Amino acid sequence: MAQPKVVILGGGFAGLNTAKALGNTRFDVTLIDKTNHHLFQPLLYQVATAALSPGDIAMPIREILNTYKNITIFMSEVAAIDKEKQLVFLRSGEEISYDYLVVALGARHSYFGNEAWESMAPGLKTLNDALKIREQILLSFEKAESCDSIIKAKKYLQFVIVGGGPTGVEMAGAIAEIAYKTMLKDFRRIDTTKTKIYLIEASPHILPAYPEKLAAKAQCYLEHFGVRVIAGKRVTEINSEGVQIEGQFIPAENVFWAAGNQASSVLKTLGVPLDRQGRAQVESDLSIPGHPELFVIGDAACALDKKGFALPALAPVAVQEGRYVARIIRENLPKEKRPPFSYFDKGTLATIGETKAVGMFGKFQFSGFIAWLGWSLIHILYLVGFRNRITVATQWLFSYFSSKKGARLIYRHLDKE
Amino acid sequence: MAQPKVVILGGGFAGLNTAKALGNTRFDVTLIDKTNHHLFQPLLYQVATAALSPGDIAMPIREILNTYKNITIFMSEVAAIDKEKQLVFLRSGEEISYDYLVVALGARHSYFGNEAWESMAPGLKTLNDALKIREQILLSFEKAESCDSIIKAKKYLQFVIVGGGPTGVEMAGAIAEIAYKTMLKDFRRIDTTKTKIYLIEASPHILPAYPEKLAAKAQCYLEHFGVRVIAGKRVTEINSEGVQIEGQFIPAENVFWAAGNQASSVLKTLGVPLDRQGRAQVESDLSIPGHPELFVIGDAACALDKKGFALPALAPVAVQEGRYVARIIRENLPKEKRPPFSYFDKGTLATIGETKAVGMFGKFQFSGFIAWLGWSLIHILYLVGFRNRITVATQWLFSYFSSKKGARLIYRHLDKE
Repeated sequence: MAQPKVVILGGGFAGLNTAKALGNTRFDVTLIDKTNHHLFQPLLYQVATAALSPGDIAMPIREILNTYKNITIFMSEVAAIDKEKQLVFLRSGEEISYDYLVVALGARHSYFGNEAWESMAPGLKTLNDALKIREQILLSFEKAESCDSIIKAKKYLQFVIVGGGPTGVEMAGAIAEIAYKTMLKDFRRIDTTKTKIYLIEASPHILPAYPEKLAAKAQCYLEHFGVRVIAGKRVTEINSEGVQIEGQFIPAENVFWAAGNQASSVLKTLGVPLDRQGRAQVESDLSIPGHPELFVIGDAACALDKKGFALPALAPVAVQEGRYVARIIRENLPKEKRPPFSYFDKGTLATIGETKAVGMFGKFQFSGFIAWLGWSLIHILYLVGFRNRITVATQWLFSYFSSKKGARLIYRHLDKE
Repeated sequence: MAQPKVVILGGGFAGLNTAKALGNTRFDVTLIDKTNHHLFQPLLYQVATAALSPGDIAMPIREILNTYKNITIFMSEVAAIDKEKQLVFLRSGEEISYDYLVVALGARHSYFGNEAWESMAPGLKTLNDALKIREQILLSFEKAESCDSIIKAKKYLQFVIVGGGPTGVEMAGAIAEIAYKTMLKDFRRIDTTKTKIYLIEASPHILPAYPEKLAAKAQCYLEHFGVRVIAGKRVTEINSEGVQIEGQFIPAENVFWAAGNQASSVLKTLGVPLDRQGRAQVESDLSIPGHPELFVIGDAACALDKKGFALPALAPVAVQEGRYVARIIRENLPKEKRPPFSYFDKGTLATIGETKAVGMFGKFQFSGFIAWLGWSLIHILYLVGFRNRITVATQWLFSYFSSKKGARLIYRHLDKE
């Protein structure tokens, strides 16, 4: 009998962990990703804010999987899926057939129907996104320094972050750190402590997935760092001058978007019900109705927990889903024998800035320095690859003791020349 | 009396060292660079070949100089210089006046009149250049793996480096390392050991600035690594299919240019004699004729040694020139009292690949592992910034013991989407 063919779409936490768990088995595994690297997305904001380099949080997928002889990797983009013919169509024109398909294509940010805002308020999902945002932040300070009056310079020192979830909170804290600490002595004409950073959240409090008490603590830390938190207000307009919220216009050169996800548009070609965020509604075994051979996992899936709530778009969920699906495939379990997927929540942490974080482990809530230390250790432990762990640890230690940021480089805008 | 105003154009080795030596003096110093970082150019080929990240070899100029309160930095591009009116014109439209001007604008690569070759054979001078070349090398292997036949894949595994100076030699060695060691286990359809790497040099031997014996040694090492060295042949044509040299056509998808410099075109606005490489011919005090207040240094200058030979475009020359000019300015020496600049040659080293290098210190010649160790130590010592030293040392040690390359990331081509 021929080797059963497993095709995995996406090399994020979900896809990569599926592949690993199918490594050196009897299956012929193909993993397809449009980039060549696995990205440690929880630290992406640190690239966007110049603390880490791309190489610190990304690793070639080929290298991670190169000991598994049964896994072939293609760098290519998926155009569509035909679930009846069991075929994946690539942008390059190629077709790939499968016996099992694992769709782990992740999500991009969503502008809730205001797609025109994207050019004014870039979001943060890929290395390119992060490098664009880094360049914009650094260039803005350079532009301010070039102005011949403080009034002209002012707009370049205004930053708005839309969305008060973990990414928005982390970004706001990190920009505050750059402006108020890292670059304190770097300029002669402008005073970087005059920088204004706004964090806007539509829900009544930031970090909506956290208990109110912890969220209040996080807000308190942020305000202590100098971030202006505006919660309970919706953004109604973003233009080249700034951001309009209910009852207030904030002029700003720099607006960043951290408010909501939209799953990969390839899911639309699946012909299955999608939720409001474009995620495939999967069954309890993470397969789609009527197709026990086709799984959707990670940020692309809307999987429900025991209480019927959608599981959050977090790395641990994606990792556990990947391993679960790999087990079903490995053991060739028929639909009726598959145990429902159940997410084991080890807790969550959100960092706010240097030395401060908030976290929950079951009933226990933490905040402050201890939470930040826990966050640092966990993120270093989970970083893929020995080298990345060492270099990231070195850089964090260095930056902790020196308040310097290692990756404050501007070069992309020169590309156009 | 007002503070005398020193304007320095360029934040490379020459400009940066001038600025440092004028730090916290009575002068009002302005440094202008079109990027925000000082680049440790001798290691740029390691970014191009995925061994190091941009952040490892570049550091914000503001950070390097931020303890000097008398130095202002502008990120801007120079358009022209009016030496009679003592004005510098920036691309942004601004004018800057000076009492002393130090032009340290460096060089780009030169295609010897065949500028059309640039698109087919990119050169290596900036971080952008390095990242473009890195992306092209890595993508070429990905494209080869996607081909459905070995014949189609072949052209993606052909690399030509034009120019057998230190940069060309280092690049050839580093690409050989990637193909024959780093990515050995990463692909399933292609065999990366089938990669062909050609190094072409028009002079009779590679490393023309080195004695023939050392050059022969370097060639021997390169050939041992798998590089095909073709010396004494001139490139007559580069097109999308490959490279034509006298009597031979080498088909290749990847052609890189490491063959010659052309000084910054801003020098043409100076109205002084330029040499064949577009460098300003400076007097023995590195100023230009009739203008003791205007110095040209580094790769932008054609300074002569005692024997009348042009000093080479090397970092140590630029560093010493910068310090020399700063001393003249600091001591306000009139033209006739200035001692002629004299370059103190501490020796040169060229690395060929992992564990092999060649070098000269005065009459002494070195090669092999000892030379490579010396090269590694010296480059780490001279790297700007404590953090960079540590991370580069960590990565070299890691890569030495594991034959892995940390920065094998492809993301730039996705920018267009």
